[in-house]
Amino acid sequence: MKERIVKSALNLFWRYGIRSVTMDDIAKDLGISKRTIYQHYSDKEAILKVVIQEELSTQQCEMAQLDEIGNPIDQMIEATDQMRVAMANMNPALIYDLKKYYPESWGLFQSHKDEFIIKGIRDNMHQGIAEGYYRADLDVDVLSLLRIQEFEIAFDPTVFPPDKFHMMRVQMQFVHHFLRGIMTEKGFAYYNTLKDKSVIEF
Amino acid sequence: MKERIVKSALNLFWRYGIRSVTMDDIAKDLGISKRTIYQHYSDKEAILKVVIQEELSTQQCEMAQLDEIGNPIDQMIEATDQMRVAMANMNPALIYDLKKYYPESWGLFQSHKDEFIIKGIRDNMHQGIAEGYYRADLDVDVLSLLRIQEFEIAFDPTVFPPDKFHMMRVQMQFVHHFLRGIMTEKGFAYYNTLKDKSVIEF
Repeated sequence: MKERIVKSALNLFWRYGIRSVTMDDIAKDLGISKRTIYQHYSDKEAILKVVIQEELSTQQCEMAQLDEIGNPIDQMIEATDQMRVAMANMNPALIYDLKKYYPESWGLFQSHKDEFIIKGIRDNMHQGIAEGYYRADLDVDVLSLLRIQEFEIAFDPTVFPPDKFHMMRVQMQFVHHFLRGIMTEKGFAYYNTLKDKSVIEF
Repeated sequence: MKERIVKSALNLFWRYGIRSVTMDDIAKDLGISKRTIYQHYSDKEAILKVVIQEELSTQQCEMAQLDEIGNPIDQMIEATDQMRVAMANMNPALIYDLKKYYPESWGLFQSHKDEFIIKGIRDNMHQGIAEGYYRADLDVDVLSLLRIQEFEIAFDPTVFPPDKFHMMRVQMQFVHHFLRGIMTEKGFAYYNTLKDKSVIEF
């Protein structure tokens, strides 16, 4: 039952954000009573935390698979593509609600960001420099933090209102602009052989 | 006297931020009584607004001069260099205080950003594309907003703590990364002839 509750909550949060989903909605979705849910979880935020933890485990697992991709340019594009798939049907309100109203669950995301994502970006940049695909004069400390901020800006409805900008259009522009900003001629030569299959139009 | 008060306040705000500067400090700096200041301005925020308005007029004037620079790449680097000069001795707390505690004065900055800076960046990008220095496939709507956000991120002490990152080191990394991310081969050919004089090390 716990697993079914988490799965239903995940679907509802993904579709409608967090604030507008109630315990009633989850009960209705599963065809069970609210009392049954409260036997397992004290409140919506308790379910939310499990949802987030499971989602982050999945992401960490997928990120680990990126290591098997040899070329750092492919790796950076694939990482964004993983995000595209993971968030294809996600309401941007989810991230916004999390940040604004659920600081503890947002904290889980922040730790994930600090431990896994920043490390992943830094490793990617160091590998790219070592292999001559990225410029040797890059300031990795500054630019890895820019890349992380780009993910967040793309989700910020005050900067990119969802009715004007599809979130993935923004993310794809960002990753390709970021890559072009760090590549050497060797990097561009490789990138230009790939480009057509990687740019997704929205 | 009004002009002297504004000039003193500007110097103090620049050096210490806004919150830690009192009306007493301004009076002491000018060797006058607080009563004299209150004859001209009702409170610190009234002085602050005039300081900000004068600073923005100066910036708008300097931005207008950018139009005389023919090449869009030179223009984008020069715009950042103008900022470097304007902010060379500025305490980053100034922007932070403004955003957090003085919403009306911050609003003046935001209007300036929307009316002048975004327009300046968009014009620059369209010119660069038309002249073949920037890629024709750029999403100007998305990337001009990224560029604006980069200015703000560089000032955000939660992203770039001032004890670890010199603000202008971040700004210079951002403008050069941004340019490299949008240039064509023709753009790079021109850029590579300039680079040594434009990159400033911190």
